Amino acid sequence: MQVKELETRRTKDIYERHLKPTTNSKVQLPAIVEAIVESCEGESIDNVGATLMPSRQEVVKILDDLKDLLYPGYFGKQDICRSDLTHETGHKVLRVFNRLSLQISLSVRHECIKSGDLCTQCVELGQAQTIRFLARIPELRKVLVGDIEAAFDRDPAARSSREIVLTYPGALAIAIYRLAHELWRQEASLVARMMTEYAHGITGVDIHPGATIGSGFFIDHGTGVVIGETTVIGNNVTIYQGVTLGAYNFRRAANGSLERGYKRHPTVEDDVIIYSGATILGGDTVIGARSVIGGNVWLTHSVPAGAVVTIKDRDLRYKVGY
Amino acid sequence: MQVKELETRRTKDIYERHLKPTTNSKVQLPAIVEAIVESCEGESIDNVGATLMPSRQEVVKILDDLKDLLYPGYFGKQDICRSDLTHETGHKVLRVFNRLSLQISLSVRHECIKSGDLCTQCVELGQAQTIRFLARIPELRKVLVGDIEAAFDRDPAARSSREIVLTYPGALAIAIYRLAHELWRQEASLVARMMTEYAHGITGVDIHPGATIGSGFFIDHGTGVVIGETTVIGNNVTIYQGVTLGAYNFRRAANGSLERGYKRHPTVEDDVIIYSGATILGGDTVIGARSVIGGNVWLTHSVPAGAVVTIKDRDLRYKVGY
Amino acid sequence: MQVKELETRRTKDIYERHLKPTTNSKVQLPAIVEAIVESCEGESIDNVGATLMPSRQEVVKILDDLKDLLYPGYFGKQDICRSDLTHETGHKVLRVFNRLSLQISLSVRHECIKSGDLCTQCVELGQAQTIRFLARIPELRKVLVGDIEAAFDRDPAARSSREIVLTYPGALAIAIYRLAHELWRQEASLVARMMTEYAHGITGVDIHPGATIGSGFFIDHGTGVVIGETTVIGNNVTIYQGVTLGAYNFRRAANGSLERGYKRHPTVEDDVIIYSGATILGGDTVIGARSVIGGNVWLTHSVPAGAVVTIKDRDLRYKVGY
Repeated sequence: MQVKELETRRTKDIYERHLKPTTNSKVQLPAIVEAIVESCEGESIDNVGATLMPSRQEVVKILDDLKDLLYPGYFGKQDICRSDLTHETGHKVLRVFNRLSLQISLSVRHECIKSGDLCTQCVELGQAQTIRFLARIPELRKVLVGDIEAAFDRDPAARSSREIVLTYPGALAIAIYRLAHELWRQEASLVARMMTEYAHGITGVDIHPGATIGSGFFIDHGTGVVIGETTVIGNNVTIYQGVTLGAYNFRRAANGSLERGYKRHPTVEDDVIIYSGATILGGDTVIGARSVIGGNVWLTHSVPAGAVVTIKDRDLRYKVGY
Repeated sequence: MQVKELETRRTKDIYERHLKPTTNSKVQLPAIVEAIVESCEGESIDNVGATLMPSRQEVVKILDDLKDLLYPGYFGKQDICRSDLTHETGHKVLRVFNRLSLQISLSVRHECIKSGDLCTQCVELGQAQTIRFLARIPELRKVLVGDIEAAFDRDPAARSSREIVLTYPGALAIAIYRLAHELWRQEASLVARMMTEYAHGITGVDIHPGATIGSGFFIDHGTGVVIGETTVIGNNVTIYQGVTLGAYNFRRAANGSLERGYKRHPTVEDDVIIYSGATILGGDTVIGARSVIGGNVWLTHSVPAGAVVTIKDRDLRYKVGY
Repeated sequence: MQVKELETRRTKDIYERHLKPTTNSKVQLPAIVEAIVESCEGESIDNVGATLMPSRQEVVKILDDLKDLLYPGYFGKQDICRSDLTHETGHKVLRVFNRLSLQISLSVRHECIKSGDLCTQCVELGQAQTIRFLARIPELRKVLVGDIEAAFDRDPAARSSREIVLTYPGALAIAIYRLAHELWRQEASLVARMMTEYAHGITGVDIHPGATIGSGFFIDHGTGVVIGETTVIGNNVTIYQGVTLGAYNFRRAANGSLERGYKRHPTVEDDVIIYSGATILGGDTVIGARSVIGGNVWLTHSVPAGAVVTIKDRDLRYKVGY
């Protein structure tokens, strides 16, 4: 206990002396500042004096409002009467319109600058795309009802659809993917990617907004799932944690630069189940309808409809006593 | 540099024009609001005009206070003297009582509604369960001391128990699971699940609150670990990242609906070690005491006490030069 | 609908009655508080009346400022003109100096207490180390430019370097690791670990600050990657999601206590690619330059330069129709 009292006294001491930096330290700060500023000249990763980019914080705020539009009464204000619904929805829609149209303008601009083609219609494009996006919400809500029903029908641990909406990371990642995919189709690719990478961070599920995914999609547990940009997934597919739908190898042009955009991720047909840790690679790989891919399987070629692919038992070595 | 100046001028322009939405856009918003409101009629995922549910934000606040009760002086206020401890603890206990009893009332209510049996004692039940839960904290603290000691004894990278409490995601996920499991046993299942899914989001470790886990439990690294609802784990078990203790297959009733609640996840006896990426499935699968399950092993049957199960070396193909 | 109205009325009722705790509940709280306070006597996990420790919240704030120093114009204030840059940088550098020097003082102190050697120079040490750390930032920026270029050159889904800086979790985890590693080398190990575990939580990538990693490092997708304390990685290495670079087994002293600090994680030479889910273990394991380690491979021994190691195809069992 005496040691602890000593410690406490010394901790107080640290705070008091901390407030008076030693002269030695203080005099070195200006040179450090100068060196950091100099390091920003001629380098590719600073964004000084350059165009604004979409903002991650804004994208997160927009997603919070969109979650309330998709699932009213769950996450934000809960006690919404049906008579308040128009008012609440109107408020959220207007706020999303204002915020998202600016972010899309900045994202479109980001694409223009890259291609060297500086258009002058960022604002109009941002607003028009936001309108098209918002108009898709009623349809998206129907698709999400199907996803939630799929989760309830395929997970014995689920006790209610409300539990799924409130707590399942897979359901959240799919909802954010479906929103982001709408923006991706409208070329607002940077905002779309910011949305799915936000979902990746909070759920561990990495779905590229460019992927094409059918209805009744269920991801259980989710951590470690990777679904690449050109993946095509049919209806009623189930995927478990740690599954990768990825590229097998990359094409490079004659000058060594990477080719982008061509189909390099698999196609998964309707009613397929892929168990945890399985890896399926390649743009020509097609997993036929109703197939079951076992856990930890590594597949780089197609399998026909109705196939069951598992790891052989003899892969293990047993020893008792050690 | 001239291009950048041009960009900057145009960015300023975007902001100014952004503030004046085009008439064309504005006129389309009311119809979109109406369509979204209409899409909330007759669908299963809205919660409009319905009962309140437990709130994720409240559950996170409660967990922050509970972390301070479990580990005083670590996360919240740090400079707590022993003479302040009663005051600090009293303040936190009262706040948890107020918040948690309401969340449990809402969770109990959620269960009642589902079963069609609307009880009239939500408030009394919520308060009584919160009291029983809080009374368990001194016992839980002892168990957590054992978990921290186990981490220190089994991880050569650990430098102190304080480092483990402050930074190890596995330790945090286990602590939150142990709190949630107490609530699960009292049927506050939705609040319990919200707690463990919050832990899943910030640690990558997915432990269902229904699992039964003995003392001296250590999860290293943690990302991708999945421990299912009916798993039973003994004392002094160690698990590495990416391990799944899951279900092998599901039972469906004659009408095709999923059966829920029966034991479908494995039993892991005392002193077992399971290395990274191993997958163990099935409600009848028993991993005997002191067994060692090697990395990436896929097991769907029991192994006796003292077994060592590994992947055979010949599974690999080598090639030099490509 | 009548049921929903009934529910709503009862929910209101819950709130009103919730505000008046039953006498029965209230009288039990003081005894619970007392029991929790008593449980803090003689236990190892409380930090009551003890020395202060570094604070996670402070570390997160410091990292936010450091991100702005590394990537000006991306995350915080975006519209920075080149003429503002000195002012902005000076402000951030001073704020990091004040905050980080205190956290390092507390971290150094934490080490002193552990070793029983209570130094009296925490404040001076904290300030001197922070100066050395800040002076490294220009050099770190150059290394990060190389990491971003590596990502762009190796990922066909990347559309621009800005997209990588703004959204790639691997790029963020590497940047935070590189900052933390500087602190680790100066013995501010607890602050360093808090930084990398913060990165682990938000990206799923667990890089120990003690690891040594060369230039041009790229981690794609990232979730589930584990890179242990004594890992050594050369230049231009690429790693995919779920890869573990870990320890094979642990040494214990004659008294059963764990040995710490010796090299127990692999060495990966220049230009190696390690695909998703591969596990490489052991302090003597060396992956020779330009090797390619296939997905899900489990390796506990060295491979020569230029090796290609994959899982054999015959591991799978196929069945059509079930």
